[in-house]
Amino acid sequence: MAHGSAPVVGVDLGGTNMQIGVVDAANRIVGQARLKTQAEQGVDGVIERLCAGIETACAGAGLKTSDLGGVGIGAPSPIDASCRIILNAVNLRWRDVPLADLVSRRLGSVPSTLDNDVNVAVWGECMLGAGRGHRNVLGVWVGTGVGGGLVLDGRLHHGTFGTAGEIGHVIMLPEGGPASEKLEDHAARSAMERRAAHLLRANERSSLRDMVEGKADDVRIRHIARGVEEGDPLAQRLADHSARMVGIAAANAATLLSLDCVILGGGGAEALGEWYLARVRRAFDEVVFPEELRQCAIVTTQLRDDAGLLGAALLARERLAKD
Amino acid sequence: MAHGSAPVVGVDLGGTNMQIGVVDAANRIVGQARLKTQAEQGVDGVIERLCAGIETACAGAGLKTSDLGGVGIGAPSPIDASCRIILNAVNLRWRDVPLADLVSRRLGSVPSTLDNDVNVAVWGECMLGAGRGHRNVLGVWVGTGVGGGLVLDGRLHHGTFGTAGEIGHVIMLPEGGPASEKLEDHAARSAMERRAAHLLRANERSSLRDMVEGKADDVRIRHIARGVEEGDPLAQRLADHSARMVGIAAANAATLLSLDCVILGGGGAEALGEWYLARVRRAFDEVVFPEELRQCAIVTTQLRDDAGLLGAALLARERLAKD
Repeated sequence: MAHGSAPVVGVDLGGTNMQIGVVDAANRIVGQARLKTQAEQGVDGVIERLCAGIETACAGAGLKTSDLGGVGIGAPSPIDASCRIILNAVNLRWRDVPLADLVSRRLGSVPSTLDNDVNVAVWGECMLGAGRGHRNVLGVWVGTGVGGGLVLDGRLHHGTFGTAGEIGHVIMLPEGGPASEKLEDHAARSAMERRAAHLLRANERSSLRDMVEGKADDVRIRHIARGVEEGDPLAQRLADHSARMVGIAAANAATLLSLDCVILGGGGAEALGEWYLARVRRAFDEVVFPEELRQCAIVTTQLRDDAGLLGAALLARERLAKD
Repeated sequence: MAHGSAPVVGVDLGGTNMQIGVVDAANRIVGQARLKTQAEQGVDGVIERLCAGIETACAGAGLKTSDLGGVGIGAPSPIDASCRIILNAVNLRWRDVPLADLVSRRLGSVPSTLDNDVNVAVWGECMLGAGRGHRNVLGVWVGTGVGGGLVLDGRLHHGTFGTAGEIGHVIMLPEGGPASEKLEDHAARSAMERRAAHLLRANERSSLRDMVEGKADDVRIRHIARGVEEGDPLAQRLADHSARMVGIAAANAATLLSLDCVILGGGGAEALGEWYLARVRRAFDEVVFPEELRQCAIVTTQLRDDAGLLGAALLARERLAKD
């Protein structure tokens, strides 16, 4: 069989859902499955569902699992240096689970590999989406928290402890209080929502109040996005602060690493769209060093929900495919 | 000739001095020269002195330049991706100077290579000094400014524009004024000296005043180091602020890159010694994420003034040596 021509499976394993896709040699998704993770069923239960889902997706593509070149899995956890063991998946309550080996065994020796969920999404975007043609790339995923992934000199960078990319945890305001110091405390979707609730309760004027019928705790990113679009000053202030902090953190990473691309993803960045992108760009350009770095592209994701499974599938092909 | 067994020359080219050393296969410096750079003599004049210095150093080792496996040069500038061209050496007032080719030609076709001065010093420490055995390393050089260099997965990281490592230019206080935002504005030797002068003029009590006989502008890092040692609260406050900012910036880099070693170098860090190192360590441990990263070593340079020429020589051997 030619190198890498066998179909591969990519899995995006989340705390709530898992998405599974069979990817052919032309990088098309030719079979899919989407299941609830049901983490409460424990490691064995989740792996059973995951592998059954792989079989379903293969059947949809007219394949057996023995036809696969490999399985790649993105998981919400740091992983070990061999890319085989989930170290600490808080959402799943898993510690030190050798997921790649367990999946391989259950599928009858199909080779498997693992990586962090944001890493695989960034890899997918670099190979097939918004990051194509770039060599030094930071992905910033603005979701409930802020996640990140790094591609350096064309390869995913894991670092010594396998935890590289955690840009949500860089300190932005070292002179501030400890609770407001990290990027994700300023920039995450949940940080914007929490701050909106706080300001509504403090009686700030905003069209957000009507959107949630006065229930401040019900503000969600979609309301903030609508407020931004309609010119509500409070919504714009919240989104602008998030964008500015993301822009400065990304510029610091670009200054340190000489990046040529920053990809913005996650529910927060996607909901706020071009408005948000433009403000990240402005803050980035104000502070990045040296000025050549203003040539660094800043883009939003293109693959959306498929980024994770596509990236995981492509990592499987790269790491596992044999002649 | 066996791979890499020929002697190589390393050059540490500064704005004021150049240091040149012949390095044998056992990494010993077997011949040396130290000259004034005399940048005012222009590119041709500096290259003539540099090459004459190489010939002197070779003669001291009983060698001719034709015996050399290669020449490596560390220069105070970003360099191009091929590691042959000085892009913008502010101290030398050079722009786009193809130094590697000019030196090769002048020496009769001895192969040459270039890198940034801090990069070569960090590489020297990684290969022969404080960073031995580490794979993901940040060097922070606290001098007149704050420079940096990165070794990632065992290789010098240059990034897309060749400017990687510029940690002195990361923004530390995005809510502060523009003049006080960058790491080097808080942490450099010159920042500590400037702040000391300012506080002495504002009549703060300090033993520094006697050391400089009341001339606030004469405070130098050696006075601050003596003040720290003698328990002077003002000197300690200045050095502590620098250390804290370096610790947080290094922790942010470690969080992003999953580093296993941070090397502190430069005149500021060396003058303040273990006292400074301990405070960098404390700030780093307070904020780095995840907590496994507290295993990251934080060390001071071992090779001191020889780090640059040794690193440059080893880069020459690695890049240029032939069988």
